[in-house]
Amino acid sequence: MSSSFPADHQPHALDSLFHPRSVAVVGASSDPRKIGGRPIAYMLRSGFAGELFPINPAQAEVQGVKAYPSLRAIGKPVDLVIVAVGGAHVAEVVDEAIEQRVSAIVVFSSGFAEMGDDGRQLQERIAARCAQAGVHLLGPNCIGVFNSHQAMYATFITALEHEQFEPGHVGIVSQSGAIGSYLYGLAGDRGVRVSHFVATGNEAGLDVADCIDWMANDPQTHVVMVYLEGCRDGDRLYRALEQARLRRKPVILMKVGRTEQGAAAAASHTGSLAGSDVVYDAVLSETNAWRANSLEEMVDLAYACSVGPMPRGNRLGVVTSSGGVGVIATDEATRTGLVLPTLPQETQTAILEIVPFASGVNPVDTTAQTMGDRTLMTRILELVFAHPGFDSVLTFNANMGRSEAEFGKIREALYQLRREHPDRLVAMSMRAKPEIAAEIQREGILVFSDPARATATIAAVARIAAGFDRPPARVEESEARQVLPLPAGALDEAAARTLLAQHGIPFAPLELASTTEEAVAAAQAMGYPVVMKVVSPDIPHKSDVGGVALGLRDAEAVRTAWAVMMESVGRACPQAQIDGVMVSPMITGGVETVMGVTRDPVFGPMVMFGLGGVFVEVFKDVTFRRAPVSLTTAHEMIRGIQGLPLLTGARGKPTVDLDTLASALVALSNFAAAHAGELDSVEINPFIARPSGGCAVDALIVKR
Amino acid sequence: MSSSFPADHQPHALDSLFHPRSVAVVGASSDPRKIGGRPIAYMLRSGFAGELFPINPAQAEVQGVKAYPSLRAIGKPVDLVIVAVGGAHVAEVVDEAIEQRVSAIVVFSSGFAEMGDDGRQLQERIAARCAQAGVHLLGPNCIGVFNSHQAMYATFITALEHEQFEPGHVGIVSQSGAIGSYLYGLAGDRGVRVSHFVATGNEAGLDVADCIDWMANDPQTHVVMVYLEGCRDGDRLYRALEQARLRRKPVILMKVGRTEQGAAAAASHTGSLAGSDVVYDAVLSETNAWRANSLEEMVDLAYACSVGPMPRGNRLGVVTSSGGVGVIATDEATRTGLVLPTLPQETQTAILEIVPFASGVNPVDTTAQTMGDRTLMTRILELVFAHPGFDSVLTFNANMGRSEAEFGKIREALYQLRREHPDRLVAMSMRAKPEIAAEIQREGILVFSDPARATATIAAVARIAAGFDRPPARVEESEARQVLPLPAGALDEAAARTLLAQHGIPFAPLELASTTEEAVAAAQAMGYPVVMKVVSPDIPHKSDVGGVALGLRDAEAVRTAWAVMMESVGRACPQAQIDGVMVSPMITGGVETVMGVTRDPVFGPMVMFGLGGVFVEVFKDVTFRRAPVSLTTAHEMIRGIQGLPLLTGARGKPTVDLDTLASALVALSNFAAAHAGELDSVEINPFIARPSGGCAVDALIVKR
Repeated sequence: MSSSFPADHQPHALDSLFHPRSVAVVGASSDPRKIGGRPIAYMLRSGFAGELFPINPAQAEVQGVKAYPSLRAIGKPVDLVIVAVGGAHVAEVVDEAIEQRVSAIVVFSSGFAEMGDDGRQLQERIAARCAQAGVHLLGPNCIGVFNSHQAMYATFITALEHEQFEPGHVGIVSQSGAIGSYLYGLAGDRGVRVSHFVATGNEAGLDVADCIDWMANDPQTHVVMVYLEGCRDGDRLYRALEQARLRRKPVILMKVGRTEQGAAAAASHTGSLAGSDVVYDAVLSETNAWRANSLEEMVDLAYACSVGPMPRGNRLGVVTSSGGVGVIATDEATRTGLVLPTLPQETQTAILEIVPFASGVNPVDTTAQTMGDRTLMTRILELVFAHPGFDSVLTFNANMGRSEAEFGKIREALYQLRREHPDRLVAMSMRAKPEIAAEIQREGILVFSDPARATATIAAVARIAAGFDRPPARVEESEARQVLPLPAGALDEAAARTLLAQHGIPFAPLELASTTEEAVAAAQAMGYPVVMKVVSPDIPHKSDVGGVALGLRDAEAVRTAWAVMMESVGRACPQAQIDGVMVSPMITGGVETVMGVTRDPVFGPMVMFGLGGVFVEVFKDVTFRRAPVSLTTAHEMIRGIQGLPLLTGARGKPTVDLDTLASALVALSNFAAAHAGELDSVEINPFIARPSGGCAVDALIVKR
Repeated sequence: MSSSFPADHQPHALDSLFHPRSVAVVGASSDPRKIGGRPIAYMLRSGFAGELFPINPAQAEVQGVKAYPSLRAIGKPVDLVIVAVGGAHVAEVVDEAIEQRVSAIVVFSSGFAEMGDDGRQLQERIAARCAQAGVHLLGPNCIGVFNSHQAMYATFITALEHEQFEPGHVGIVSQSGAIGSYLYGLAGDRGVRVSHFVATGNEAGLDVADCIDWMANDPQTHVVMVYLEGCRDGDRLYRALEQARLRRKPVILMKVGRTEQGAAAAASHTGSLAGSDVVYDAVLSETNAWRANSLEEMVDLAYACSVGPMPRGNRLGVVTSSGGVGVIATDEATRTGLVLPTLPQETQTAILEIVPFASGVNPVDTTAQTMGDRTLMTRILELVFAHPGFDSVLTFNANMGRSEAEFGKIREALYQLRREHPDRLVAMSMRAKPEIAAEIQREGILVFSDPARATATIAAVARIAAGFDRPPARVEESEARQVLPLPAGALDEAAARTLLAQHGIPFAPLELASTTEEAVAAAQAMGYPVVMKVVSPDIPHKSDVGGVALGLRDAEAVRTAWAVMMESVGRACPQAQIDGVMVSPMITGGVETVMGVTRDPVFGPMVMFGLGGVFVEVFKDVTFRRAPVSLTTAHEMIRGIQGLPLLTGARGKPTVDLDTLASALVALSNFAAAHAGELDSVEINPFIARPSGGCAVDALIVKR
């Protein structure tokens, strides 16, 4: 093992945690099964190349290594200190470590925030001292961190006691030590080899985002698996995930608490803020993190992404000795967004020359004949690989991998094809003995026993690969030309409309009238029919009190409506301050949409788009993105709703102007981002989409 | 091996296929790897208890068994004949077998429908001869059938050459030999033991439904796995699945061709009718067959259902040493329809007495403390099992199953709990060595490495169990009080409305008027406003030619509309026969719904329900069932749409009379079933649902 970094490593603040030159263990134990003994045992067993300092005032040496009575007594600089003492003694060890100018501290000890308020206060004091001193703190109440390339095991993870897998290139970042540890085992069972592992415990200092950021920077980590229960700082997580995306590193992330019940279970288990699950979905999609629904799916994807390569696109070629498997793969490919392009006629002809009753289209059904003579299969595979139109190739080979003799008949030809076409993702679906599966994996070919699972995994990897090339979904700098301050106090509809219009959102014309005749004049100027609404900061639900009149067709109708409205509102809300009446043209036709902003407790202002009414309330057919969004992202939001056909001409509706919708969403998102701290929500309902242009006709701004 | 049936076996027509007393192999080979040699080799190896007659005119014995020159030469009755000769010789062997009065014939040989029209004709001739003689024909072009309890292997499935698993209680019925064979291997890998296996090949005689029906009747088959690509006779499949349901046997079925692309791949691979995929969904749901999306899911469910028991309900208790896994299980349970009831306070208190920082609610988080002292975990498990409110219990035990020493600490206590609570479905999520997983399975406990997959499987088993107790979704006898014949020729709207009303579907009142004044009189009698529509068999799209007038408020409006309509229709369709005008009250308010009947090529008339317009066309929010349906099923259809809240008071809409909707659906389904052979489709659009009552206002009947 080497203690030096790979040549292409760029220095990073957390190097001292993930790649320390020296490690001290306070609470070092001679018992290799105690939490103060395990790190030493693991590092000795694997040959940690840095310096190791057990701290134990009662012993001259620990597990055969010279021990020191204290950190002070070492007399040399220490990068990383492991704290494995009782919770009550942690603070003094941390103080000593800070005094000795260590770079990072890992606190295994429990007895902090997870135990109640006293523990929380103690934890906050320790965290504050570390923050002040610029020392990185991992934990407390965490099972630690390891770097398998360096044989640096600052962890008491029990999985390592019996099973230690070879170093690899997949990083694990977990908020739960138990899940992280289990995931390490599951990954190992699947042949996924881990580069670095970190469990963040109570996250008094470092959090998941910090660890992802380090792995995004680390040349030895090619893929990151993340287990997340909650998040304090959504912006930091977002940026770390964007870092990984920009470095083209797949992040496979499981965020639990998807359901209300699950979120409640998570809240009782951790102290983290819940955040809205649809917002997590949106944010993870934006940052190209693959949201896995199970540990198994995480491992499948880490396996596929690390065996690689990442495919260039979503075109799949399928070669199978069973027509039925071809159908299974086609179904699953279609469901998951892969396409199966037809092979060129000359390739089809060549396949039929090899096996007369084969189907050469794609999926290529080689028929059971190829099971009797394996050279037929390899010749067909050669033809399929020679076709440049597939980004991935899946081949089904039934039970071939159960027999060394059978697999031996295609081994060399298969590996040759793999080498000749290094840019293809290649997967086999077959039952295989573990040693054959491991060998195939080493050659850069995936193996799955289930063909649908193989297909779904290829589709996911293709989606992740495509996400690397996308421009950022969120624009870091607001594109708004001007940002006006929010007025003090509550905003009535007229004020909200005016303010949003000033920020670039088109609204139906609006005139304020203080008298009947002003209203008539305004209506005549803008053209009948018009709408009138009472203006009052004291009346939030205007239509409930007779404060709205629709479809007024002439001056007489305006005058009558004015009188009726004033009488009705005056009776319902005698104390309300009436600032007049808004007059707007009555907008008819077009398609009603809704745009909004909500404030997520984790990720801040989120912009929302959907169709109005039941489509939002009953069908939940809305899309979200973090504000501010780019124009491209706004178009994605619009195209992401299930009801899109209603905007593109379905059922005799007009095809509406999507550019106007997208521009309005961008403007709204800029407004939301600029006022992130002050806004609770914005709702523009409806925004009328029309064949040309479009405009909002109502708005509500709620301040925090 | 015994050749006798279990004592509780009821005689079934296919006993001679699945449980023959004697088997002859025509084309018997001395080479145990040839298709005519494999059945003999497999039966000799495993000890088939019946009589075995190799037929080979050139040899005195085959694989050590006395051979006969022909079927005639045997001179004894033969139950089952295997035909393993070249396709061109099959017909003569079949003739000889029929002459010898055999009961069943399995044709391995290929060269039939799968090879084109000549083969198809040959196949049809053979099938017709068997049908005429009352001989059961399996195949041709099939890999055969086996009964592992009887060691009867009328198959050349290669999977058996290297791997033969112990007999069990899961049946496999597959249209594809390759998939069936692979499934047998996957099942074996998971510890699922097979009782009977059959691949139906070209299905010239027996089909999948026949085989399911036999397994439903067989006491040794407890669970059936089915792989289906297409179906000729939907009614037979439906009845076989209902048989299995009535005998409380889980059927796990994979029907491929879910997507348009997959269906196209299936069509090129088989000759089967496609049928609509949503109709398959509906039919499988009605008959309680679990529709699996992958082979892996099939095996998971066969595993769970065969290790059993089937749980009594959907209440899950979770005990985990990792809080994170508790959240994962809660999310997945919620997603899949399980509930996690809270433990009683006294149980919670007792748990906290065992582990002070545990969470005792449910999921019970025992904390990592229980990994150090396993007795804590078993004591908590005892408390959870003692609570009668859980139908299933899931426990997460991390890596415990990797270590005999660790698992040994809870083994006896766990098995004791299993025995004391035989009605609970019990699952463990942990990494386990194969021998430990196999042992646990033998004790009747499921093992899954992935906790979400364990949870989803429990949920599926609970759903299957619940389906056994449901009354049949489809009523076999039409409940209609009267069935009137369909009039000859095309039906115009008035005729369609009248006919459907006669069958019990409420319609808005309708009067036919031949003159203006008749229309006025009708309108006055029913009350304004009214709707008028032209009546003509030649005008299908009335509104396109000015043949519809809405909202007519008085006699004058009726007269004007009449004149305008006649002028407009006369101009647009000068040749059309005009039979007068329909007058109906203008129905306003209520919620528009759609009811319909479509004719599925496989399953016949299907009744459909949904909300009108975009909800059907864009959101595909409709439910289907096979006609005729019971009232309960009609209510399920209504409650099955996503837009149900629009019928139950969402967004200020009225809560409508669901009983009227359900009765109308029953009546429509009866009408459809009674005229199954003559109808192409029926559309009642809209049917206006109202707070009390409700009625149809338009109808279209299209005959075949």
